[in-house]
Amino acid sequence: MLAGLEVVRTLNDHGIETEAPIEVAFWTNEEGSRFVPVMMGSGVFAKAFSLEHAYAATDTEGKTVKAELASIGYLGEQEPGDHPIGAYFETHIEQGPVLEDNGITIGVVQGVLGIRWFDCTVTGMEAHAGPTPMALRKDALQVATQLMQEVVASALRHGPHGRGTVGMVQVHPNSRNVIPGRVTFSMDMRNATDALVDQQVTEVKTLAAKLAADTGMRIDIVQVSSYAAIGFHDECIDAVARASQKLGYSSMPVVSGAGHDAIYMARLAPSGMIFIPCKDGISHNEVEDAQPEHITAGCNVLLHAMLERAMA
Amino acid sequence: MLAGLEVVRTLNDHGIETEAPIEVAFWTNEEGSRFVPVMMGSGVFAKAFSLEHAYAATDTEGKTVKAELASIGYLGEQEPGDHPIGAYFETHIEQGPVLEDNGITIGVVQGVLGIRWFDCTVTGMEAHAGPTPMALRKDALQVATQLMQEVVASALRHGPHGRGTVGMVQVHPNSRNVIPGRVTFSMDMRNATDALVDQQVTEVKTLAAKLAADTGMRIDIVQVSSYAAIGFHDECIDAVARASQKLGYSSMPVVSGAGHDAIYMARLAPSGMIFIPCKDGISHNEVEDAQPEHITAGCNVLLHAMLERAMA
Repeated sequence: MLAGLEVVRTLNDHGIETEAPIEVAFWTNEEGSRFVPVMMGSGVFAKAFSLEHAYAATDTEGKTVKAELASIGYLGEQEPGDHPIGAYFETHIEQGPVLEDNGITIGVVQGVLGIRWFDCTVTGMEAHAGPTPMALRKDALQVATQLMQEVVASALRHGPHGRGTVGMVQVHPNSRNVIPGRVTFSMDMRNATDALVDQQVTEVKTLAAKLAADTGMRIDIVQVSSYAAIGFHDECIDAVARASQKLGYSSMPVVSGAGHDAIYMARLAPSGMIFIPCKDGISHNEVEDAQPEHITAGCNVLLHAMLERAMA
Repeated sequence: MLAGLEVVRTLNDHGIETEAPIEVAFWTNEEGSRFVPVMMGSGVFAKAFSLEHAYAATDTEGKTVKAELASIGYLGEQEPGDHPIGAYFETHIEQGPVLEDNGITIGVVQGVLGIRWFDCTVTGMEAHAGPTPMALRKDALQVATQLMQEVVASALRHGPHGRGTVGMVQVHPNSRNVIPGRVTFSMDMRNATDALVDQQVTEVKTLAAKLAADTGMRIDIVQVSSYAAIGFHDECIDAVARASQKLGYSSMPVVSGAGHDAIYMARLAPSGMIFIPCKDGISHNEVEDAQPEHITAGCNVLLHAMLERAMA
């Protein structure tokens, strides 16, 4: 958003008037930390879900988006998505280590990985760890760990963009002395195309079915979220690459593994993204850090890419 | 404890006077749910640790055993372990499924498995699940799951009494969207001899060292507790078997996978234990259940085993 403001200020400073008007967007609730769905503002704008749906979302205390926006004077009156968009560009830190690892300044984002989120629950039989012989156990964790490994193994089989992560694990009753009776864990699978990520999902589900049959334990896999893979618009991708080259910044094609508002905006208009490196690939953390010269480069590329589109 | 009272009442009812006096013990804090160490009363009695050590133990609110015993009038004045013991018997539900599975009434306990408890921590690198390619990850959970499986695999390699359990898992930061940077989990290994259980420990530690070398991740394994394997006294084992036979109860030799006060008492005197079945092997749970006829049988065997020793 600051990059967008800087673009507009620079144009004003130089007295440059574009053919098409330039708007700066600061989308409500991109992160989804307090309210789901994530990418809420752009999702409403692109009609991925309704304004009423977004307004009705509640936080853990039961407060709604609508009431909270009203309380800070940000409810607004304009109809979201009520006007056409010629093109959309978004700058972002990479949130990953690829640019830094390669010593490159600008990531020319080709698209965003398709994402599938599931919760998996394995139900075995809770029992005292000492007196229960191995043959009479139904240890939910031992089955769950095989699936946790398959989430990663399947991503590796479908490289280079396949990704698999188990980030969240809950063991019940989670006692040193008790064989786990129930284990719930998250499964996050991503890839550059929907066909590839769906293949990963199929492989994990196939192993789950086999393990359930072999062990007699119940395995439930429930989808939490699904985002289609997005390929950005060729002209926007080229505009970012051209701007980088013109300005003398090193650049490379990258994919975005994380969701961004540009995913929804790509439904409405030709869209593109510009990545800059961030230290150790870390984001969402107090140590998140980006070099001033990289931020400047990202803003400059955004300026020139937008100028190219707005002058066309 | 109620079984012991029943034994004494029955002897009194029948006017039977034994050569040696019979005492009934109700040991303080066998479970260790609120205060550690577990088996606290018998441990002090057998001088496994000092009275002062037990008194100083605190619960999660910082209250001490000594203050809490004083507050309910149970501090007492007698010196623990101040008199000799001729023999010690303890009855217990099996807390496991073996007797029920075999349709047997009395378990003649041969000994108690050696127990080794560890906490294992794998330290990787926390990172955003989307933008971090597989090759640049240090996913602590993927290493931890291999060790979790080895705890069980090693127990299976050293049957029939080998046991391995991972009951407790903590993933940090435990977020769907973040590659786990740190995973801590418990490892519980048991076997009928110390040599066998120590072999299991060696195998798990060997894999941990290999995984640490292969992945560059740090793996810390810290011992939490260790209990030597105990073989009960032949004469006490025989007394339980003889009593079962005399009374017409089916019986079989079993081992105890769980700790009991008899472990410490076996340091002081010939000791033995009597197991009876419990429904589905479940204990420490509201659905814990034992049949009245099995409880009666256990009391009867205890009575006759004690009579045999106290009349000798």
